[in-house]
Amino acid sequence: MLELYHAGLTTCSKKARHCLAEKGLDYVSHYVNLRRFENHRPEYLALNPNGVVPTLVDDGTTIIESTFINEYLDEVFPDPPLRPADPATTATMRGWGKMADDFGLSAVRIPTWSRTKADAIKALAESGTLDETIARIPLKDHRDKFRKIASGGFSDDEFEDAYAKMDFVYARAEAALADGPYLVGGMFTLADINMLPFIDQFAKYRPELLQPGRHPRTADWHARMMARPAVVKTYTPSDEAPERAAMPETGRSAA
Amino acid sequence: MLELYHAGLTTCSKKARHCLAEKGLDYVSHYVNLRRFENHRPEYLALNPNGVVPTLVDDGTTIIESTFINEYLDEVFPDPPLRPADPATTATMRGWGKMADDFGLSAVRIPTWSRTKADAIKALAESGTLDETIARIPLKDHRDKFRKIASGGFSDDEFEDAYAKMDFVYARAEAALADGPYLVGGMFTLADINMLPFIDQFAKYRPELLQPGRHPRTADWHARMMARPAVVKTYTPSDEAPERAAMPETGRSAA
Repeated sequence: MLELYHAGLTTCSKKARHCLAEKGLDYVSHYVNLRRFENHRPEYLALNPNGVVPTLVDDGTTIIESTFINEYLDEVFPDPPLRPADPATTATMRGWGKMADDFGLSAVRIPTWSRTKADAIKALAESGTLDETIARIPLKDHRDKFRKIASGGFSDDEFEDAYAKMDFVYARAEAALADGPYLVGGMFTLADINMLPFIDQFAKYRPELLQPGRHPRTADWHARMMARPAVVKTYTPSDEAPERAAMPETGRSAA
Repeated sequence: MLELYHAGLTTCSKKARHCLAEKGLDYVSHYVNLRRFENHRPEYLALNPNGVVPTLVDDGTTIIESTFINEYLDEVFPDPPLRPADPATTATMRGWGKMADDFGLSAVRIPTWSRTKADAIKALAESGTLDETIARIPLKDHRDKFRKIASGGFSDDEFEDAYAKMDFVYARAEAALADGPYLVGGMFTLADINMLPFIDQFAKYRPELLQPGRHPRTADWHARMMARPAVVKTYTPSDEAPERAAMPETGRSAA
């Protein structure tokens, strides 16, 4: 039995949910409410010591990190295959997985956390529970970002750096898609699954990235990806993945 | 024919050279002199658009990123195997590869670049060629770090963050090795190869990390790793990998 702990429409949760949908795999869905900091609760940290989503549990065995969850799913459930047949293109595919983490996630976090966490963190500060909430976060980088949001938000330099990463990702995607139609050539792979939530979300913050003439191959790829049934299923709000804006803006830690 | 472009005793080059040595693979060695910024020359950027080392070329096919180079080597030359037989432990092994990048390399870079690049960057500034040298660097993070070194070096916060990452890596290694004797259990894998240069180098900056009683399992693992013939071969200065301190401190860009 597969179980997925995830936060619905957040970027890394979409990566894993999309991969599961492409494989047609059934799983038990466990929604982790990030606005209530459920990902920092002891019972979740026992599964995922980094306190991040998603986490896959396969018959009691725990797999963390969405990029490695997806490669695991492809190894255990190889139909349809989502990795190239040759090792060199597989290495390139893995490079996109790293790009998703190093440039995708790190860039999207600045505008996204500014938007989704500021109210909750402000409420924690007002109720005097900010320090104890931050103390439960395993990753220093995340603790630092919580404190930064509490004390006024990210700097202009941090936003500029995030936007530069978005430009870098789009430039690399545009170059790679010259040998498309997919990111590593003729085959739809985990590279496409892992990059999609970032290329998609970047354009929500900066619509000019997908405007006509700017990144034509990436715009075409994005449109094709968004039309895939597995993407429509996993990127659209649902019972499993509630609309983020409509989620309760609770200021209290539920831990 | 295998060719490796590398910078000898630097951390990520050691990862790939160590893996090649464990496999007993012959290769043509191309030494890339980082102090002469050879990694930013157009001919190298044609192989590796990020301008970092190492790069593997296998019969004309280029593979970048040391973690993926090593997984490629294990897939193409599976004897002796360096990945676990089961997909779940393989996912854990990949997590260590990510740890090597996100916590290992990013932490070691602060003290290492302060020590190895400061003189060269200062000389570039004095000769008026700093801006043109920086303009050839593909990664913004590296351009930013060069500028920071040129204008006085990394901040106390940046050193503190690097040291916190070193503590984090040692704590995670110590916990994992409770189920050792290797990082992912009973088998020597790419996890050990990829983490070794960081755990080893951290202790050069902070010898207390390996002092008796601090991280006993990690200290034992480190001693066992350093005694492996492939490690002795690749971590010891040689014609292929010159002593770093003895390298010429040229201030001129050779590009």
